[in-house]
Amino acid sequence: MLATKVTEFDTSQTPLILGVDGGGTKCKAIIYHNGCVLGTGIAGPANPFHGYDQAIDSIVAATNKALADAQLPGQMISQLVAGLGLAGVNLPQLFDKVSNWQHPFKQMYLTTDLHIACIGAHKGDEGAVIITGTGSCGYAENQGEPLVVGAHGFPHGDKGSGAWFGFSAVEKVLLSLDGLAEKTLLSQSVLEVLKCENDLALVEAISGQKSRFFAQLAGLVFDAAAADDSVAKAIVIEGAAYISGLARKLMATDPKRMSIIGGLAPLLLPYLEDDVRKTLSKPLAQPELGAIYFAQSQLSANQSIQLIQGA
Amino acid sequence: MLATKVTEFDTSQTPLILGVDGGGTKCKAIIYHNGCVLGTGIAGPANPFHGYDQAIDSIVAATNKALADAQLPGQMISQLVAGLGLAGVNLPQLFDKVSNWQHPFKQMYLTTDLHIACIGAHKGDEGAVIITGTGSCGYAENQGEPLVVGAHGFPHGDKGSGAWFGFSAVEKVLLSLDGLAEKTLLSQSVLEVLKCENDLALVEAISGQKSRFFAQLAGLVFDAAAADDSVAKAIVIEGAAYISGLARKLMATDPKRMSIIGGLAPLLLPYLEDDVRKTLSKPLAQPELGAIYFAQSQLSANQSIQLIQGA
Repeated sequence: MLATKVTEFDTSQTPLILGVDGGGTKCKAIIYHNGCVLGTGIAGPANPFHGYDQAIDSIVAATNKALADAQLPGQMISQLVAGLGLAGVNLPQLFDKVSNWQHPFKQMYLTTDLHIACIGAHKGDEGAVIITGTGSCGYAENQGEPLVVGAHGFPHGDKGSGAWFGFSAVEKVLLSLDGLAEKTLLSQSVLEVLKCENDLALVEAISGQKSRFFAQLAGLVFDAAAADDSVAKAIVIEGAAYISGLARKLMATDPKRMSIIGGLAPLLLPYLEDDVRKTLSKPLAQPELGAIYFAQSQLSANQSIQLIQGA
Repeated sequence: MLATKVTEFDTSQTPLILGVDGGGTKCKAIIYHNGCVLGTGIAGPANPFHGYDQAIDSIVAATNKALADAQLPGQMISQLVAGLGLAGVNLPQLFDKVSNWQHPFKQMYLTTDLHIACIGAHKGDEGAVIITGTGSCGYAENQGEPLVVGAHGFPHGDKGSGAWFGFSAVEKVLLSLDGLAEKTLLSQSVLEVLKCENDLALVEAISGQKSRFFAQLAGLVFDAAAADDSVAKAIVIEGAAYISGLARKLMATDPKRMSIIGGLAPLLLPYLEDDVRKTLSKPLAQPELGAIYFAQSQLSANQSIQLIQGA
């Protein structure tokens, strides 16, 4: 069965492409051929800033899962043309380190997770993208010139992200328990969800927690804001104002299209300023497809160079 | 020599007292006898919340150093009446755990670091104390009833602390590098001190850093505020307003005396609200002496009980 499957692919004409979206939480890989996604695989964290070896392991593991999901044999990894979009490789030394990886693919093209998210949202075309999930940032590309706004990480950056909303809620709840901020619906719902009765319990529950933990509380802030909770509304307005400001920085590059993506996007949208909201277009594809488009464009650029050199 | 020294102490009449101030950064121990500090020892972190074994090790190490500094033999540890003021033991399970420690002392009396800071500031008497160093909090004791405001830790709490000032500065610098906040003297001085040229370098420099790292930047905020830097002034005003609010919570308990202590106190004082500043009295002694007063009061209370029981 597998052998038959393999012979279906004339990879000398149209290559098997691997698209990888590697973030701080998980790594998603897809196998793509002739306009079709053949298989998908998900593995652990793949941000080399938080661990190079783990990132490499996650990329290979997600790829192997995607090959298996496509019912392709593991050894076909050596025939894959890989497009990798990884968090963390905006740092030059990490970009170089991953570039020098003795990878198992036929070819590897590397860029940032932001870049493939942008390419995905605009189906291969240039544009701008606002990402608001666990973290937050903005990315625009205009005539090959990238602009990154934010992407600084939690808790010092990533304002307007899920982690920031949850963390801001906890800060306010702690103040309210000391009588130094208003005690509202938000305090109640945060304490209930975390099963805490007082400030000591809350401090224990949140100590040492990472961005993902706080991002899980973001929904409570938007729920309370919708119920007219003054503290929650103030947090939402502050976070949304930051995202609107970030959007305007992207708009200043005059992008062809601009989208907002990530888990928080639907919650944030109603709070963004009118001019920003009107500028936004629906995202057209996921970041991992962006990684495929990226690999394709790099491949055809390379082939053109080879043709010119051959002439 | 040592043997002569030891015989000088008739510990049956006035005991040798050990005072320990154990915090998240270091542990300070003093040996006290008949109104004199005989020796001092400093060791590592002693907050059992961050590691019970390390806290115990630090307490013993600081005690041994203090005994050596007092030119007393190590075995005299078994004659010490210990007053321990530790961070973290406001959590009941940690209080119980340290209370059940098979300690090497003659007797051990345990309380929080805030309590001994308060007792120290008022030379054994009740009162209130605001602590602003690396962290921040308020403590008042009125007729044996303690009130704790804050003490929630960094980065979710400890507003108005050194760590909070430094962290707030970094947040603003990151925003300014994206053009989303004003670029002022403060951005310049933070980048210079951390030897960073851009946001990527700054993110690398601060990632994973703890409260102490950020507290080292607090001075830059106050320097810039004094030079009329608008961003720095806004941070200082926000932090000082929180400390003034915290002070008013303490004032509501009608304390006999109120003091502000910690490394940030002299910098913050000019920015506190007038009514708060006028209420403040000079702290009279250090927390480790507060631990001595605490042990003495516990000892004499115990002796009274024994007398009554014996009668």
